[in-house]
Amino acid sequence: MIALRSHLQGRWIEGGSPQVLVNPATEEPLAQAGSGGLDLAAALDFARGAGGPALRELTFAQRGQLLAAMAEALQAHRDELIDLAVRNGGNTRSDAKFDVDGAAFTLTTYAELGRGLGEARFLVDGEGVSLARSPRFHGQHLLVVRRGVAVHVNAFNFPAWGFAEKAAVALLAGMPVVSKPATSSAMVAHRIVEILIERQALPAGALSLLVGGPGDLLEHLGPQDVVAFTGSSETGARIRVMPAVLRNSVRVNVEADSLNAAVLGPDADPGSETYDFFLKDVLRDMTQKAGQKCTAIRRVLVPAAVADRVRDDLADRLAPITVGNPAQEGVRMGPLATASQRDEVRRGIDLLARDGRLVYGAADVKPVGVDPGRGFFVGPVLLEVEPGAEAPSVHSHEVFGPVATIVPYSGRPAEAVEVVARGRGGLVSSVYSEDAAFTTDVVMGLAPHHGRIFLGSAKIAETSPGPGTVLPLLVHGGPGRAGGGEELGGLRGLAFYLQRVALEGPRPVIERMIK
Amino acid sequence: MIALRSHLQGRWIEGGSPQVLVNPATEEPLAQAGSGGLDLAAALDFARGAGGPALRELTFAQRGQLLAAMAEALQAHRDELIDLAVRNGGNTRSDAKFDVDGAAFTLTTYAELGRGLGEARFLVDGEGVSLARSPRFHGQHLLVVRRGVAVHVNAFNFPAWGFAEKAAVALLAGMPVVSKPATSSAMVAHRIVEILIERQALPAGALSLLVGGPGDLLEHLGPQDVVAFTGSSETGARIRVMPAVLRNSVRVNVEADSLNAAVLGPDADPGSETYDFFLKDVLRDMTQKAGQKCTAIRRVLVPAAVADRVRDDLADRLAPITVGNPAQEGVRMGPLATASQRDEVRRGIDLLARDGRLVYGAADVKPVGVDPGRGFFVGPVLLEVEPGAEAPSVHSHEVFGPVATIVPYSGRPAEAVEVVARGRGGLVSSVYSEDAAFTTDVVMGLAPHHGRIFLGSAKIAETSPGPGTVLPLLVHGGPGRAGGGEELGGLRGLAFYLQRVALEGPRPVIERMIK
Repeated sequence: MIALRSHLQGRWIEGGSPQVLVNPATEEPLAQAGSGGLDLAAALDFARGAGGPALRELTFAQRGQLLAAMAEALQAHRDELIDLAVRNGGNTRSDAKFDVDGAAFTLTTYAELGRGLGEARFLVDGEGVSLARSPRFHGQHLLVVRRGVAVHVNAFNFPAWGFAEKAAVALLAGMPVVSKPATSSAMVAHRIVEILIERQALPAGALSLLVGGPGDLLEHLGPQDVVAFTGSSETGARIRVMPAVLRNSVRVNVEADSLNAAVLGPDADPGSETYDFFLKDVLRDMTQKAGQKCTAIRRVLVPAAVADRVRDDLADRLAPITVGNPAQEGVRMGPLATASQRDEVRRGIDLLARDGRLVYGAADVKPVGVDPGRGFFVGPVLLEVEPGAEAPSVHSHEVFGPVATIVPYSGRPAEAVEVVARGRGGLVSSVYSEDAAFTTDVVMGLAPHHGRIFLGSAKIAETSPGPGTVLPLLVHGGPGRAGGGEELGGLRGLAFYLQRVALEGPRPVIERMIK
Repeated sequence: MIALRSHLQGRWIEGGSPQVLVNPATEEPLAQAGSGGLDLAAALDFARGAGGPALRELTFAQRGQLLAAMAEALQAHRDELIDLAVRNGGNTRSDAKFDVDGAAFTLTTYAELGRGLGEARFLVDGEGVSLARSPRFHGQHLLVVRRGVAVHVNAFNFPAWGFAEKAAVALLAGMPVVSKPATSSAMVAHRIVEILIERQALPAGALSLLVGGPGDLLEHLGPQDVVAFTGSSETGARIRVMPAVLRNSVRVNVEADSLNAAVLGPDADPGSETYDFFLKDVLRDMTQKAGQKCTAIRRVLVPAAVADRVRDDLADRLAPITVGNPAQEGVRMGPLATASQRDEVRRGIDLLARDGRLVYGAADVKPVGVDPGRGFFVGPVLLEVEPGAEAPSVHSHEVFGPVATIVPYSGRPAEAVEVVARGRGGLVSSVYSEDAAFTTDVVMGLAPHHGRIFLGSAKIAETSPGPGTVLPLLVHGGPGRAGGGEELGGLRGLAFYLQRVALEGPRPVIERMIK
């Protein structure tokens, strides 16, 4: 069993008190990782003191080149990373490609954005403004890079993509990164950093890796530092109330739970292209990554008149999904990431079932390609509630697995909006309809409650990756339950790592300064 | 003694457990205000349910008209409000005008911004983007108004301006406001709301007022609500850790402490225009509002070679400042707002004096126009530290009164930046110099640590209100110790009250939707 090491202060170092990482399909131990005894204050100082100045020295275009080199490194090691994700992540090859290719695509996109920003080292924010009758007294906002370190605490489900989407934005902004992957699936992120260090893709101190528990990492954060976290809302809240975070107004971005909804319009008759598009997206979100996507559709709102048909059609399409060891040919859905995730999903299914009934599948499943009783498997499960049911758990409890609930509604847009809004804030919801009036009403009604709304028209069925895919040019995050954060969104994502500052003074002096 | 009432659920209502509001110059009781027993959950619901829809119905231009009417109402009652500020705020007439006129100016500025936004009800955020090779698959970000209520918790020092700068932005964005002034100086804010209600300047529920303590107001906040707070960092931290705030990811903006610095360049010889401009700004910030401005200069960085001269010049100019009852002719500085503020400022002066020495003034002062021993007075106090002194309190303890400390430095820009940055994040700092290279180095060095940098060149001396004045077109807020918030900044300020949402779908459908 190999011991994963952290990369801190410019060198590889093994921490104590390790946890064991396993193959979630077979429970075979693969590696161990611990952070006990590591000097994390010194690690942050090194990032701030070595990585920060080195990155700030570079222009945006040069930082973009670093990202391009990172993408290239990932692509060069694509097969190896996919194999690791299959073994340590319970990913099918298709799941693993989604993660690794998503990482490379995000890096490439931000590399291009960097090229577009050219030789600058700070961003000019908006036009200058006259502050008095005399045009000489002038104001101009800038966005300048913060002098601290960006700590990234990632979720277990996307060890490659989650790492890359946070790192790409921070590095392009000019902030050094300390990345902490979730321990259970850390092998992919660990290998990525190993590859990047081997290739000397980044200046010393620009990228550090902490494997194992977070230790006292966040207790050493200062006023120029930021934390971006993806995971449970409980952990998000724990980060927000840390004394160092409060005392220093450390910026915190949280991406947490979300009860993403898909709304089928009453015009989308069964058998229509729009209806098929909708079914395909629901099915993909239930089974891809075994439903372990923060953006996956959890609530399936369908006009009551077609609820039976939707249920039957989904059941028909779920039937051939083979669950088992993703290393085996033909398996279309792997296990959950950990035993505790499996147990929590099972408990969640029981909870949701109290709001209605289970109409397809069971929490128990006989996986193929593994010894009996081994692996953290849950089969796809479809539930359904009565039209108009209050269904408190369906609208408040995120089950992070291959689970969705059909929620019949009247077909009126206002009702769809009201029902979806019971989720109290989400990352993304979607509406499948060709009726422009219906779509507009639902989209505008849902907009304040979401970071993204997906318009599922047949017109984009061929090119669309569906609502469950995070795109680097669109914001990712959402209000309320979803954590209140915002990542990506093209250049918008940089703002989290930059300080907006207003310059106030003589126009010629300011204009010369920002040229 | 009158009892101030709250305006909640569309009516005036008196709460229990009142506190007494006094004239801080004479300690004469003026009014009482309490919030005991008020149903604050219902008050928030009324704002959300009545005020929200009424405001969202309006276009930005129409909301701008509301702000223009508010400004007009303030101007019509200007003398009355100034009189109240003199009595209840300890303001000189000049201080009171600064507050009331600042309020009206901010409202007028946002009224104009609203007119510029025209008939829209949401903002289009950036250009649309192609999301695939096919240009049909399209993304577009919008900023849409949140469905909740904006709670504004204001500081005691600017009862008019503080109210208006928060309310203007929220109302223009389309969010209903519940405003809670600091109790000690609440009479001005109370009278403003009374005037606005009498004039029916706003739709029902768009503006509520809570006088007295905050009670359980913040325990009822939900995922679409926001809180903007100005005051101490301790209270800011208490708001951030409230269970409802954490659970619902309630947006919180904190504007807290700040050790604003003014840096005199080595080129600004005593007697030069730039030097005089610098002295004037330091003097204004020490004495205006008795130094009770969050943006006031606290640390005066001067080249060691001229430190003695600066000290003497400031002392000469402080000497004729008459301290006393601001209702009396000739008084140029009034008392602090409360007895506890006075005590805290006295303690703060003692603390700073340990870092160096007191060179002008004394915490004790003989105010004119009041009975002996009455009133919460502190005279202007100037301190000084040795060149290169660590001066931990000077760089960490904000004394919220007529107090500043001279900090001699070498004249090197890098040293100025390092010394100012010891403040760990501030609202505004300023640099007084005509040397473009020096100014640029200091400005760019200070930028990541501040929300605003003021370039004090003689070229703008005639039109400039100095660094201590918050301008509605520039952001107000700062990282770290300053709370990490951001207000105003023209249209930038609206973002706090809006939800950014990405629309993802067929280009023609999205383009029609946002027209």
